[in-house]
Amino acid sequence: MSRTSEEETNLALVLAMFESVLNPMDSAAVDRFISPAYIQHNQLAEPGREGLKKFLDVIREQTPGAVHDVKRAFVDGDHVIVHYHVRRWPGDAGWAVIDIFRIEDGLIAEHWDVMQDVVPGGPNPLAPF
Amino acid sequence: MSRTSEEETNLALVLAMFESVLNPMDSAAVDRFISPAYIQHNQLAEPGREGLKKFLDVIREQTPGAVHDVKRAFVDGDHVIVHYHVRRWPGDAGWAVIDIFRIEDGLIAEHWDVMQDVVPGGPNPLAPF
Repeated sequence: MSRTSEEETNLALVLAMFESVLNPMDSAAVDRFISPAYIQHNQLAEPGREGLKKFLDVIREQTPGAVHDVKRAFVDGDHVIVHYHVRRWPGDAGWAVIDIFRIEDGLIAEHWDVMQDVVPGGPNPLAPF
Repeated sequence: MSRTSEEETNLALVLAMFESVLNPMDSAAVDRFISPAYIQHNQLAEPGREGLKKFLDVIREQTPGAVHDVKRAFVDGDHVIVHYHVRRWPGDAGWAVIDIFRIEDGLIAEHWDVMQDVVPGGPNPLAPF
């Protein structure tokens, strides 16, 4: 590995956000990690940091036992990429998700993601992680 | 940016694979980029390098005008991440895709991906790129 200390810091910020915001779906912890100028590209969330809080409140209400199981994470300069498995309840096949975050001034400033249903029983026994 | 020369080489390999394999959906070019021990995690493709060739032949037959429009790409050591927009025909809303590739001995040795339909008209005008 050849990560710079800035890259290690950026990666640690995002993993801490998973621990403190995404896993507990805690909208109250958002401001410690997310920029006030947050640019959201998720198709289902409303824009900005307040939209993210609303989104977290909705998913915590709907699926209080959801887990966000990180499989691998990468950093390239100011971008951090995380591949994880969302399971909404025990036994849920869930979603495969890859997030891309852009860090600016020590906070997450922009976010893209792609989500896909995990469908057991397809042609590929190694899918999807 | 703080990419090493090995990282630049890995990123260039993957972008060249998009140019020579994925965009033209050319199964004949696969062996120049993909390891014989290729580990495939795509849910719909059959395992291995031969499965990839078959997959390319199928999608070229079904959607000969498909484009794979790269939006952003990253590298972290031996892993390369590409975020792109697949449009199967002109005017297709298409899919948002993020691929993760692992490079070994100068070839792509492992691949994970997540794909999602682009749905126009959602709550977020910035979605998904």
